[in-house]
Amino acid sequence: MATAGLYRRALPSPPAIEFASSQGKQLFKEALAAGTVEGFFKLISYYQTQSEPAYCGLATISMVLNALAIDPGRTWKGPWRWFDDSMLDCCEPLEKIKADGVTFKKVACLVVCNGGKVDAFRTDECIVDDFRKHVISCTSSEDCHVVVSYHRGVFKQTGTGHFSPIGGYHAGMDMVLILDVARFKYPPHWIPLPLLWEAMNTIDEATGRYRG
Amino acid sequence: MATAGLYRRALPSPPAIEFASSQGKQLFKEALAAGTVEGFFKLISYYQTQSEPAYCGLATISMVLNALAIDPGRTWKGPWRWFDDSMLDCCEPLEKIKADGVTFKKVACLVVCNGGKVDAFRTDECIVDDFRKHVISCTSSEDCHVVVSYHRGVFKQTGTGHFSPIGGYHAGMDMVLILDVARFKYPPHWIPLPLLWEAMNTIDEATGRYRG
Repeated sequence: MATAGLYRRALPSPPAIEFASSQGKQLFKEALAAGTVEGFFKLISYYQTQSEPAYCGLATISMVLNALAIDPGRTWKGPWRWFDDSMLDCCEPLEKIKADGVTFKKVACLVVCNGGKVDAFRTDECIVDDFRKHVISCTSSEDCHVVVSYHRGVFKQTGTGHFSPIGGYHAGMDMVLILDVARFKYPPHWIPLPLLWEAMNTIDEATGRYRG
Repeated sequence: MATAGLYRRALPSPPAIEFASSQGKQLFKEALAAGTVEGFFKLISYYQTQSEPAYCGLATISMVLNALAIDPGRTWKGPWRWFDDSMLDCCEPLEKIKADGVTFKKVACLVVCNGGKVDAFRTDECIVDDFRKHVISCTSSEDCHVVVSYHRGVFKQTGTGHFSPIGGYHAGMDMVLILDVARFKYPPHWIPLPLLWEAMNTIDEATGRYRG
């Protein structure tokens, strides 16, 4: 009997190393000892799946806002105030995001109008060493989180533009832990930071600008 | 201006230790070194929030089924086959679960009819040492996960009966890591295993039997 639809995709490895694999766990242990997964604990406490195919940007923001313990000031379900991806509609109509996804600029707007602060960095305005410094700084703290906008094709993954938060950094391997919000497709995985930079340094056809 | 609803609850500590606190991280590091958070990596990759107030049992099962990479054989959204709490309706009508929650027995039924295997243990049929052995065995492996049914009141938490999966064990402190699925209320936390046993060893008024 044929079953309709798809059950996950095989994670192309290399370049990725699955977080829950032996090697992925070893990287995590080493990064933990080195102090560059400090932000992981709060962020993973609110790890979630994007609820719609084009909600990767919204699920990414929702995780970070919950991890930073920002009160949305409005209820989600029952009496509870809580961020979910389907509640983030202040910069762009949700129906438009459902159809077309969301741009780098709108993601920054959405964080701000929900009570967060944003330092936006684009690949055509800084260099990979600046990016690495920010990744190290944020993964070593609990007060900020790095989210990235990138093209999946650079990692040999299916799909195009995608957003996800970064959960950690491994200095020895120069790799970042991507907490992929499309968990029905790919599990969380480590990716070489220079390759992530390359994936960020691609043109978003929706805006004609560099993506990340 | 008053804001409607509730923004989380303060986690009563003791007896709980928040996972993302300094002490919680330290416990995690030690448990990682001891090999009793092996199942954590797969399980946390699919950590989710219960989507309805009475869906704690369903969200718990959904996490475990995704962590075990069981194919649901039916689609969730778009082309993707994936478990979400709102898809688990084979043993009890979803509307009934939404109103009344789900019992220990129905949770076991739901796992089986979705392709998982269950070893069910109840507090009136075994002793705390047996429970500890199972927790150690499952947290040291990736092939099984422990889910628990317990009364929150024993932890000084608000609410009554609750389900959540266990993400790890710390032998020195004899504590378990509860990946609470009601994340809008309490973050994941460590709890003394004997206290969890006590919370499991309470009567579920819906069935008149011991809960866990």
